[in-house]
Amino acid sequence: MFRPKIKVLDCTIRDGGLTNDSHFTLETVRAVYEAVCAAGVDYVELGYRNSKEMFSPDEFGPWRFCDEEHLRQAVDGIDGGDTKISVMQDAHKAVAEDILPADESVVDTIRVATYVKDVDKAIRLANNATDKGYEATINIMAISHEGAPFLDEALQQMEEETSVSAVYIVDSFGALYSEEVHFLIEKYRMYLKTKEVGGHFHNNQQLAFANTIESIIKGANYVDGTLFGLGRAAGNCPLELLLGFLKNPKFRLLPILEVIGGKIIPLREEIDWGYHIPYMISGVLNLHPQQSINWMEGDNKDKHDYAEFYRRVTELED
Amino acid sequence: MFRPKIKVLDCTIRDGGLTNDSHFTLETVRAVYEAVCAAGVDYVELGYRNSKEMFSPDEFGPWRFCDEEHLRQAVDGIDGGDTKISVMQDAHKAVAEDILPADESVVDTIRVATYVKDVDKAIRLANNATDKGYEATINIMAISHEGAPFLDEALQQMEEETSVSAVYIVDSFGALYSEEVHFLIEKYRMYLKTKEVGGHFHNNQQLAFANTIESIIKGANYVDGTLFGLGRAAGNCPLELLLGFLKNPKFRLLPILEVIGGKIIPLREEIDWGYHIPYMISGVLNLHPQQSINWMEGDNKDKHDYAEFYRRVTELED
Repeated sequence: MFRPKIKVLDCTIRDGGLTNDSHFTLETVRAVYEAVCAAGVDYVELGYRNSKEMFSPDEFGPWRFCDEEHLRQAVDGIDGGDTKISVMQDAHKAVAEDILPADESVVDTIRVATYVKDVDKAIRLANNATDKGYEATINIMAISHEGAPFLDEALQQMEEETSVSAVYIVDSFGALYSEEVHFLIEKYRMYLKTKEVGGHFHNNQQLAFANTIESIIKGANYVDGTLFGLGRAAGNCPLELLLGFLKNPKFRLLPILEVIGGKIIPLREEIDWGYHIPYMISGVLNLHPQQSINWMEGDNKDKHDYAEFYRRVTELED
Repeated sequence: MFRPKIKVLDCTIRDGGLTNDSHFTLETVRAVYEAVCAAGVDYVELGYRNSKEMFSPDEFGPWRFCDEEHLRQAVDGIDGGDTKISVMQDAHKAVAEDILPADESVVDTIRVATYVKDVDKAIRLANNATDKGYEATINIMAISHEGAPFLDEALQQMEEETSVSAVYIVDSFGALYSEEVHFLIEKYRMYLKTKEVGGHFHNNQQLAFANTIESIIKGANYVDGTLFGLGRAAGNCPLELLLGFLKNPKFRLLPILEVIGGKIIPLREEIDWGYHIPYMISGVLNLHPQQSINWMEGDNKDKHDYAEFYRRVTELED
C-alpha cells in the first residue's frame, strides 16, 4: 500500500524559524530532533545555513546559521537512526564558503531555496554542495508566481547542470489548488528526467496537506511536513497527518504526538501560526503573506476587521 | 471559469449547533443569516427540525427544532435575496408531522440526514417533504463506514423512490482522502441519474475544503460550508475558502469576512472547534469523534498528552 520511494522531511525548526527569527531554545531543537528521528522520518532540517553578512547574529538565533558547533549541540547523545540532517541555503542570502567538506560536517543534505530569477545562483550553491560530498536539492519558492517560459528554462537548466536529487515546488503563498499542483508536478517531471520531484506547501487555504497528497499522487517523492504545521503565517503541511496518510510501517506516530503535546503546543504562547483570515486572504489572492503578517502583528485596534484588511490589500473602495 | 450549476449551502447554525446544543443567540443567528444572504449564497441552514420527543427543549436551544415562530424571528426584516432557507431532519430523530405544508412555512428546503441502515426512514421523510411542496435532499452520514452492497442498494432506492434534488456524501468522521472522494462521487453519479450529488466534509485531517474541491471536480454540484469552519469537533469546510475557489461573480466575500470577524471569532471564547490532535487521530483512524470530544472537554489533567489518548483509542500498550 505504501510507496517506499517517498522521502519525508521535517522542517519544523527551519520553517518555524521564520516565525521567531530562528530563536528556538536548544532544548526545543533537541526534542524535535529526537522525536523526528524516533518516528523514522527520512530527513530533519534544523535550520538555514545562511550568511552572517546577510543576517545579523545579534538579531537572529543560531538556527539561521546552523554553525557546525550548534548542530553538534543539537544532536549529541541522541540516537539519530537513519534520519539525515538537512540545512537550507537561500540562493540569494548564502555563500558557498560556509559549507565544509561533507566528511567534516554533521550535515548530510543541503537544500537550496531560490526564486526562478536566481536559478544560476542556486545551481552554483547546489553544485558546491554536491562537489563537497553532500546530497543537494533545489527548492523553487513562490511557484504560484512562476510560469513559462522562465520556469521551464530553469527546470531544463537544473536537469542539465546539476546532480541534485530532487527539485521542489514551494507554494510559498499557499495559493495553489489541486489542479495547479497536478499541472506543475507534470511539468517538473517532463523536464527532470533524472531527478525526483518534491513538494512543500503552505496552509493559507487549509490545503497544505491536501496538496502534498496531490503531489504524491502525481509522482512527487520528496515531501515536507512540520510538527502541528508550525511555520510562517498559516504554517505548513502537518507532519502527523502526512505520516498517517503514507502508511509506511517504518514510521512511528507516537514520538510525534508526544513532542507536539510536550514542546510544540506550548510554543503557541509565543507564536501564533495557523489558519487566520488575513492569511486566507493572501492565499486566495496569491499574494506574499507579509501584509497579512503585519496586520496580525500590528497594533491595529481591531485585528478582526477582516473586511477592512481585504479592502486594503485589494484597494477596493467598497 | 465558474460552474453555474454549483449550489452552496451555509450550515453554520445547524452544524455549529452540535457544539453548543443549538444554543445560539437570536442576534447571532440573524447576523449569520443576513451575511450569508448578502453574500449571495444559495442556501442557509438555520438548524434542525428534529422531534421534541427525542430532544428536550429544556436542554436544547431553539435551533434544534426550528419552530416556524423562531425562524420568523431569525429572518424578519432582513433582505433574504435569492437565498433559500433549509432545515435538517435526522431520519431517526424527526417526524413527518412536524412539517407544515410548504406554503405555510418559512422553510424552502428540507435535508434529511441518515445512516444507510435508516434509508427507508429517510425516504419517508424526504417524500413527506416533497409531497408538502418543499425541495428535499438526503444526506448520507458516516459515509466512510459505508460500502457495497448496502450503500449501492440505498442509492438505487433513492433514485427510484424519491424526487429529492440531491443526495450527499457526508464525511462525518473527516476520514476520507481525495481518492475515496473521487470513488464515492463516481459511484453516486452512477446510481443517481436524475439527481445531483452533494458533498459535506469534516476537517479532522484538514481536508474538508480540499475534499469539497475534489467532489466538485468529479461533478458534485451541491456543497456545504460554514463560517470559519464552525462545526462539531474539527469543524467543516470554511465557507470563505469555498467562495474564494468558486469564482462565481454573484458571490460577495465582504459580508462573510465581516460576520466572521464580528460574530464568529468571538464564539471561540465558548466553543473550541478546529484542528486539534485528538480530532486528527479519530480522522486518521476513521472513528466517530465522540471519544476525542470527551478527551477535549474532560477534566483530564494533561489534555496535551496525545500519546496517551492515541494509546487509549487504539488500545495499544506501547
